[in-house]
Amino acid sequence: MSELRWDRQRGEWVIVAPNRQDRTYHPPADFCPLCPTRAGGPITEIPTSDFEVAVFENRFPSLSAIEQAGPDAINHARDADDHEMVAPAQGRCEIVVYSPEHEGSLGQLPVQRIERILRVWAHRYQELSTLPFVRYIFIFENRGAEIGVTLTHPHGQIYAYPFVPPIPARERAVEQSHLDTTGTCLHCHIIEQEQKQHVRLLTEDQHVLSYVPFAPRWPFEVYIALRPHRSSLLQVTPFERHSLAGALKRVLSAYDRLFDQPMPYLLALKQQATAQADDPTAHLRIELYPARRAVDKLKFRAGSETFMDVFINDVVPEEAAERLRAVLPE
Amino acid sequence: MSELRWDRQRGEWVIVAPNRQDRTYHPPADFCPLCPTRAGGPITEIPTSDFEVAVFENRFPSLSAIEQAGPDAINHARDADDHEMVAPAQGRCEIVVYSPEHEGSLGQLPVQRIERILRVWAHRYQELSTLPFVRYIFIFENRGAEIGVTLTHPHGQIYAYPFVPPIPARERAVEQSHLDTTGTCLHCHIIEQEQKQHVRLLTEDQHVLSYVPFAPRWPFEVYIALRPHRSSLLQVTPFERHSLAGALKRVLSAYDRLFDQPMPYLLALKQQATAQADDPTAHLRIELYPARRAVDKLKFRAGSETFMDVFINDVVPEEAAERLRAVLPE
Repeated sequence: MSELRWDRQRGEWVIVAPNRQDRTYHPPADFCPLCPTRAGGPITEIPTSDFEVAVFENRFPSLSAIEQAGPDAINHARDADDHEMVAPAQGRCEIVVYSPEHEGSLGQLPVQRIERILRVWAHRYQELSTLPFVRYIFIFENRGAEIGVTLTHPHGQIYAYPFVPPIPARERAVEQSHLDTTGTCLHCHIIEQEQKQHVRLLTEDQHVLSYVPFAPRWPFEVYIALRPHRSSLLQVTPFERHSLAGALKRVLSAYDRLFDQPMPYLLALKQQATAQADDPTAHLRIELYPARRAVDKLKFRAGSETFMDVFINDVVPEEAAERLRAVLPE
Repeated sequence: MSELRWDRQRGEWVIVAPNRQDRTYHPPADFCPLCPTRAGGPITEIPTSDFEVAVFENRFPSLSAIEQAGPDAINHARDADDHEMVAPAQGRCEIVVYSPEHEGSLGQLPVQRIERILRVWAHRYQELSTLPFVRYIFIFENRGAEIGVTLTHPHGQIYAYPFVPPIPARERAVEQSHLDTTGTCLHCHIIEQEQKQHVRLLTEDQHVLSYVPFAPRWPFEVYIALRPHRSSLLQVTPFERHSLAGALKRVLSAYDRLFDQPMPYLLALKQQATAQADDPTAHLRIELYPARRAVDKLKFRAGSETFMDVFINDVVPEEAAERLRAVLPE
């Protein structure tokens, strides 16, 4: 089974999950575990013959509910000042299947179906927030065999961690410092500036702004942010959800058109750590890290990116925005 | 040309280097820019017909010396509280060619030649430390087309940054806190514990210890550390250098034997930020991140690793050590 181990050198948790080594790996389409169970076919993870969006617990979880461990097990582990600090890998890993169709992708779905996925994300976020050991909920998608995805059926994932992960923790500190200094939300400030400058903008309406950030780590990195201050999906109005789904569809379509082939990407929904957190610094946005830097070249994380956390981006952000705008559908 | 851009959301520098987009990409062996220049052949980066180890400035640098910018240019940039903070990409990127032979790898060189490379690394570290704008020197190697390496000729790289990168900065804080609390070097403590426990040990002599760390991010991750407290390569004795070269050769050989094929890996030399730093917390070690998790599978950084910095490792570290020991040459 999985466990958390404390890396004393970095001061961070690592998940050791040997149960994942034998997870389903590029199965043939006839044996896709994310397809509906159809008459005469194999029984899949989804025991019905049709659905719109399906959510279930990952059969090969990194994190899962552990009955015998209390909700504060991780804090007790942290107390012991030992060379080998271990904690139960409490949490939850869910799969969100976007569509009963085996082919296609999130960006190819109609806007109404993307809105439904956003509603499902909101529902799971609310539900998982009630688990007593959960400290951070991460909604995301990995797309593309090039970056290690082993199931092609359109789907995303949700991880509910028993701790606040390092990057959200650092961002939280930066956001708090900005709030303390200026009295405003850092993201509200950035969004306003991007809207004024216009040079990195991709889509804009009264609810949502899409743009290439000023200092992106990935060529063609894009943020899609709510213009009004919304701490999580639970605060979003139906009109805002409609705008967000539309902007997401347009940006994902532009990605696939940019090099005339499906763009491998990582997608993250960033919002308040949990529904209970009550955090004035949180501001809802979707971050997209596409993996391609040219038609036949991927961007890799090599020595500087991996050991130092210093990214080298080959594409000037303003040019990336121009090239994406040129292929953005209406 | 390159520039540094400040990511306000993360509080980190990103290097934007459009000059690197057209760097040499998988040239045919006859046109390898890292081979010696031979009679009748193309003129390479190295204008002599033979050498042992060659060092030169990267022709497609992320960072380079900028005459008109003063040594503190980056601090002036930081002072301006603007939405768009830019600094000159001052620094240095060097290529270290390990051998005149186009084929082969670091781990296949005789120990004496690896010792020579360690001496070259020490020399470059000392030299680059004298540049007034340099704050951190990173000696590393990326190996394998699977992880994006575009030149197969055995070589490593050196980056001299004008700032201390995020990961060394975080490690420094953890090390300082351990030193303040216990009065001892964190790494001396970890090395002593690993030596006692023995379960994750790979190689051991009086000078050097190799082991799989307790909480590795990568399956088959290995650290090779000096047992005596040495802050940098400049403090290492000839005997210690010989041990370090021997241990490195054995571990790299084990990597290639583990799955009976060349192991793609990232290698980092971690030591004091610069020769001038005078840092009691620095402890010399080599860290190795191999990219394969099984004979036909790579470990990828997906959503959790990339957006959260939470790694999921499929291989139990103690088993990784056992499997590596089984293929470790004498």
